[in-house]
Amino acid sequence: MKIVRADVIVTCPGRNFVTLKIVTDDGVHGLGDATLNGRELAVAAYLKDHVCPLLIGRDPHRIEDIWQYLYKGAYWRRGPVTMSAIAAVDTALWDIKAKVAGLPLYQLLGGASRETVMVYSHATGRDLAEALDVYGQHVDLGYKAVRIQCGVPGMRSTYGVSKDGEAYEPAKAGLPEEQYWSTEKYLDFVPRLFEGVRARYGFDTHLLHDCHHRLTPIEAARLGKAIEPYRLYWMEDPTPAENQQSFELIRRHTVTPLAVGEVFNSIFDCKQLIEAQLIDYIRATVVHAGGITHLRRIFDFAALHNVRSGSHGASDLSPVCMGAALHLDLAIPNFGVQEFMGYPAEALEVFPHAWRFDRGTMHPGEAPGHGVDIDEKLAARFPYRPAYLPVARLDDGTLCNW
Amino acid sequence: MKIVRADVIVTCPGRNFVTLKIVTDDGVHGLGDATLNGRELAVAAYLKDHVCPLLIGRDPHRIEDIWQYLYKGAYWRRGPVTMSAIAAVDTALWDIKAKVAGLPLYQLLGGASRETVMVYSHATGRDLAEALDVYGQHVDLGYKAVRIQCGVPGMRSTYGVSKDGEAYEPAKAGLPEEQYWSTEKYLDFVPRLFEGVRARYGFDTHLLHDCHHRLTPIEAARLGKAIEPYRLYWMEDPTPAENQQSFELIRRHTVTPLAVGEVFNSIFDCKQLIEAQLIDYIRATVVHAGGITHLRRIFDFAALHNVRSGSHGASDLSPVCMGAALHLDLAIPNFGVQEFMGYPAEALEVFPHAWRFDRGTMHPGEAPGHGVDIDEKLAARFPYRPAYLPVARLDDGTLCNW
Amino acid sequence: MKIVRADVIVTCPGRNFVTLKIVTDDGVHGLGDATLNGRELAVAAYLKDHVCPLLIGRDPHRIEDIWQYLYKGAYWRRGPVTMSAIAAVDTALWDIKAKVAGLPLYQLLGGASRETVMVYSHATGRDLAEALDVYGQHVDLGYKAVRIQCGVPGMRSTYGVSKDGEAYEPAKAGLPEEQYWSTEKYLDFVPRLFEGVRARYGFDTHLLHDCHHRLTPIEAARLGKAIEPYRLYWMEDPTPAENQQSFELIRRHTVTPLAVGEVFNSIFDCKQLIEAQLIDYIRATVVHAGGITHLRRIFDFAALHNVRSGSHGASDLSPVCMGAALHLDLAIPNFGVQEFMGYPAEALEVFPHAWRFDRGTMHPGEAPGHGVDIDEKLAARFPYRPAYLPVARLDDGTLCNW
Amino acid sequence: MKIVRADVIVTCPGRNFVTLKIVTDDGVHGLGDATLNGRELAVAAYLKDHVCPLLIGRDPHRIEDIWQYLYKGAYWRRGPVTMSAIAAVDTALWDIKAKVAGLPLYQLLGGASRETVMVYSHATGRDLAEALDVYGQHVDLGYKAVRIQCGVPGMRSTYGVSKDGEAYEPAKAGLPEEQYWSTEKYLDFVPRLFEGVRARYGFDTHLLHDCHHRLTPIEAARLGKAIEPYRLYWMEDPTPAENQQSFELIRRHTVTPLAVGEVFNSIFDCKQLIEAQLIDYIRATVVHAGGITHLRRIFDFAALHNVRSGSHGASDLSPVCMGAALHLDLAIPNFGVQEFMGYPAEALEVFPHAWRFDRGTMHPGEAPGHGVDIDEKLAARFPYRPAYLPVARLDDGTLCNW
Repeated sequence: MKIVRADVIVTCPGRNFVTLKIVTDDGVHGLGDATLNGRELAVAAYLKDHVCPLLIGRDPHRIEDIWQYLYKGAYWRRGPVTMSAIAAVDTALWDIKAKVAGLPLYQLLGGASRETVMVYSHATGRDLAEALDVYGQHVDLGYKAVRIQCGVPGMRSTYGVSKDGEAYEPAKAGLPEEQYWSTEKYLDFVPRLFEGVRARYGFDTHLLHDCHHRLTPIEAARLGKAIEPYRLYWMEDPTPAENQQSFELIRRHTVTPLAVGEVFNSIFDCKQLIEAQLIDYIRATVVHAGGITHLRRIFDFAALHNVRSGSHGASDLSPVCMGAALHLDLAIPNFGVQEFMGYPAEALEVFPHAWRFDRGTMHPGEAPGHGVDIDEKLAARFPYRPAYLPVARLDDGTLCNW
Repeated sequence: MKIVRADVIVTCPGRNFVTLKIVTDDGVHGLGDATLNGRELAVAAYLKDHVCPLLIGRDPHRIEDIWQYLYKGAYWRRGPVTMSAIAAVDTALWDIKAKVAGLPLYQLLGGASRETVMVYSHATGRDLAEALDVYGQHVDLGYKAVRIQCGVPGMRSTYGVSKDGEAYEPAKAGLPEEQYWSTEKYLDFVPRLFEGVRARYGFDTHLLHDCHHRLTPIEAARLGKAIEPYRLYWMEDPTPAENQQSFELIRRHTVTPLAVGEVFNSIFDCKQLIEAQLIDYIRATVVHAGGITHLRRIFDFAALHNVRSGSHGASDLSPVCMGAALHLDLAIPNFGVQEFMGYPAEALEVFPHAWRFDRGTMHPGEAPGHGVDIDEKLAARFPYRPAYLPVARLDDGTLCNW
Repeated sequence: MKIVRADVIVTCPGRNFVTLKIVTDDGVHGLGDATLNGRELAVAAYLKDHVCPLLIGRDPHRIEDIWQYLYKGAYWRRGPVTMSAIAAVDTALWDIKAKVAGLPLYQLLGGASRETVMVYSHATGRDLAEALDVYGQHVDLGYKAVRIQCGVPGMRSTYGVSKDGEAYEPAKAGLPEEQYWSTEKYLDFVPRLFEGVRARYGFDTHLLHDCHHRLTPIEAARLGKAIEPYRLYWMEDPTPAENQQSFELIRRHTVTPLAVGEVFNSIFDCKQLIEAQLIDYIRATVVHAGGITHLRRIFDFAALHNVRSGSHGASDLSPVCMGAALHLDLAIPNFGVQEFMGYPAEALEVFPHAWRFDRGTMHPGEAPGHGVDIDEKLAARFPYRPAYLPVARLDDGTLCNW
Repeated sequence: MKIVRADVIVTCPGRNFVTLKIVTDDGVHGLGDATLNGRELAVAAYLKDHVCPLLIGRDPHRIEDIWQYLYKGAYWRRGPVTMSAIAAVDTALWDIKAKVAGLPLYQLLGGASRETVMVYSHATGRDLAEALDVYGQHVDLGYKAVRIQCGVPGMRSTYGVSKDGEAYEPAKAGLPEEQYWSTEKYLDFVPRLFEGVRARYGFDTHLLHDCHHRLTPIEAARLGKAIEPYRLYWMEDPTPAENQQSFELIRRHTVTPLAVGEVFNSIFDCKQLIEAQLIDYIRATVVHAGGITHLRRIFDFAALHNVRSGSHGASDLSPVCMGAALHLDLAIPNFGVQEFMGYPAEALEVFPHAWRFDRGTMHPGEAPGHGVDIDEKLAARFPYRPAYLPVARLDDGTLCNW
């Protein structure tokens, strides 16, 4: 079997997605998601101009060899662009292999370790009352795990909260929105949010929250300590993680579980975090962390240190990524939770998929491969629309972490 | 002052280079190198499609703010593509700022800390006799520091050695060359190479060697220990550095100085290497390590730990990068050595430059800015030609580090 | 360009200041502050007798080389006298360089990273009621950050509190005042001070407090833990920091952010504090920490570890230091807050300055250089008046940290 | 008993010395050395303008209280100027106390722990032959320990070696001499020097060598490892010690004993070096390290970690310092060796002294106090002559450690 084609498809059914389609001489094809929110065309070029020519004629079964070829052969390693491109190739090849085997991908990964995959949803509100109401709606929908984000009094905008009450989508067309951030206002308010949830809905649902890298380590330690009575499932991305050692300070002060990893693209981005037991959930994704091959290794390393998975699953990655992630989620021994935000209706049409959602749980389905395909004709009707994630600034204009 | 244009120029005068040109409403322009060998068009797309639109209308004086905007604002941080793009912007802005100040860039960086910049050249031979002869030719040319690489008996190809006796250029048009690697043959041979150099030429020149990531940590320790009598200036890239801790093993066994860093793109790629004193020279570049702004921080961090600079200066980066590097080299307190391979004649014409070479030393020149410009008309006559770096395999076909 | 004069000007317009003025053959001059409160003439002698003769004939552009020359060339490194002298030279040379470039100094430091610089003021009261009133007055004046100090019941004097209700100025003419200190009385009282602030004014302003090195590590840990509900912006100088490791004990017990550094004069005075994440704000100053060149390196090292700046800006340093500090404050990415106490009216006349204050924020102004000059004729009318900082003793007469 | 006078005497009998003379109302006087080579007048000003007025009226018996008063009361701690000034006061007060007791100072320090104090001399030669000859002369003179320094082939000047064959004195009148340094030439040559000593004179004398801060840690490790067969008593000042951690690298690779400390002025400058057992001899001096009171504490801390003393005793400190040092040397349990270079004849006349030298050993004498006085009339005939230590530059002009 040989690879005869490798095409990059950029489409915007509600939001931008980059998809790699690899076709073999046997007519089998596989798909990989290569979406890097706000930097999509750089990955598309990395694939189209530099990687696709290398694939033609290769044996698609040699996934490990091709992974090493692209990783070591590129010479310039790591980083979101490089690793998303490699991930797309890797995912497409696993898709092909599973189709050739006539099995759903999770069977090649060791088979199902559980019946379903618990997902968490996003409950957001412009103010405390709304946030609590929406949280309740999600509980009613059957979610066992809900992430809550809420507008902060005195702040003009808040991460994760839609201003107009519509579905929250941070990436906007045009130039990046500049948002305002005040740690003081946030720290003053947010414990009351969790207090409200637990007072009204008790402790039966998993309560999650995303700090979105906005805090310094000592601020994160302060918050983690303050909210211990509300027993969060996790406090996500408390501080930027390039300096992995900085989590040591948070960890010293609080037993609030920590999750991090959506921006990671290498096991080396979290090696110290995991081996020093500085986090509890690793949220790396199939797309940004080098595909099934590399992410599985991250999860295995995590298992060794009692760290569970928490795959990032925001809609900034395509239904192809969701499919691949669900197969991993089902198979690995140390699964924690899978994020699920839903997708625009057009996206669900462009990407026909075997995965299904049911009252707070998901399943990858039983179709051979990862079970997600693309309707290329339909995709072509949604051309790329440049969009950027927002940036955040402090009151004095200092650029800070969004 | 405002930025009014930001253009990406891809040209191949002998080899591929990506150049960012930023123009202000005052008519001042600045250049930055964005070349990523073998992955050039990904950086070009990152710039053209995602970064250039963000620059228009901004104040070019706000270099730090723009750096943070592009780094934190991208959300997906680090990696060679992202950081090379940011570096190009940063270098072009420092070029503009120095031109506005009417000063050569090194003056803005604290002024000259030395009269000239010592460079090292590449002496290579297909066999021991040729390598030793070429080393002697370089000494005669006035070089005070020479890197030696030599064909290894029984190996079909060797890193750094031209097969045909012409100028060595690893990147080749067409698909990547597959080379063969045998650590055993190499370790058996290479100490004799250094012994030969010292026996014939004594200890008056700095002797350098590049292992090019081919060894495991214990093999590197073994080599470093074996060659101590020949007192190398440095042993470069002994082992891959993603797992920084692995250098601890090498360091424990040998006093042969270690250099590493040409593939690094963040201070976090070398934080542990530097703070634990695992290396002696940091070889990061202006282009891949985020520009003047970030590389200066790496060098300052290194100085605090008695680590000196050794800027990568192979011809895979353009004369623009060389100019920027030379200004940093001249200014920083902890300069070690600068690599210099020379450039194809066409490249020197496409990039008129103030820097000059004289018997083993270089100087950035006294032109305002970094002193390197581009002849766009001439550049247009050298269209992009896809080329790849080689990959390496062991005898059994295993993909290994090139 | 050559340095043709270097003069030391000692003046006392309300309080003592030592200023270095460097003049070039082009007629450009630059100023540096060399004030060391209570030991002014030692720095003046260090400059006049030992450093100024070394400067004549040198190229003022070679700032880094001159810094290294004075630091390494002195042989006897570090310490407040040495480093304040080097700082004065460094600041004056940056002033000259920016004037030659025709740019405000912050532009040479990377440009503005924010629009304005947040400052904190000093609210002090002889008792709780007065302290709270004064805090409110500062809030009304627009300050977003206020340091509160208060007389402690049963203590005859308190750091930071004026006895007579006039402007607080610790240095007094004549011999040093001997003050009395009781940790027990202080620890019993001070939490009520913060409780009072938060009860009356809420959490919208940043609340700061200075322990002024009076506590042992375990006492500081005890205080930090006790005051967590009041969420201080920082607890300053909790314990003497020569033994950096001792902060580990404080850090282990509390999430109250820590600030320290006004007495530091080398990056090595805070290397462990920063790299082990034992503090959150580094309060080193341009004058005592070796000038723009060295302080920028401290701030960069701090940024790598999520530590922010908090430049000391008491009136024991001249308006020249304030100008230099504000340029750094505006430019660095990890700015926290700048102290501002104001100056005696005569001092503001002796030092004409471009910097300005507006409702809790400052800006260095747009004059080329650092924007602060000296009226030498006026300065001559305020001759040096010996003055000392106080010392503190325990009840039994034991000399303790003031 | 009260202090009634405190005078600073600056004299240049062959070289510059700063001496503090404290007089009591009982007519007893004490002397302290305050010499800081090349920065003498800064210490003189520190004493005269800021410290002497504080002493008048105090009880000279309260040495500890006065030490704390000057150290903590200065607010700005540490550094060579401050600590040399405090040391002078401390030494003079111990001199007074011992005179009042009618005992030689060593008796107040616990009495003699040995009969005599071993000293090491300086054997230097312009080339190998001369150095070896001079070494032999010193052995013949009875020295049991000899430091050897030698001109290095191809270097225009060498630390510790007189060009003209006269007594070596690094500080020169006029501006600082600029010397040239090449680590490569030094490392290539110096092992042969030690080989020569051991071949000709055997292992019966202690062989010492001073690297004078010229090496990086890896270079020092390389040298220490290379010279192990010659069993040096110590390798002194291998690398600058501000970053104490850097000695860890040297220590890992060699069993050559390490000595360091002549530039230290606080126990905190060597705390990590000692507690991590990174050195074997602490070479701090009475003058620069805060006097008898503080240096004794450094030595006590060293003893706790099996580190011995090796007091710096170059002629850049006065015979007063030598007297004080010898009393400490005689008394402490962990004495190693005392440096002794001799003094210009005029200096020995200006400072009448009880200490004596005899065939490689010294003794502080039995006069009450530390046994060194000053002939003020004679001193006045030798006015201060500005002089500087040299600086060192690399071949390319880079300022390096002298």
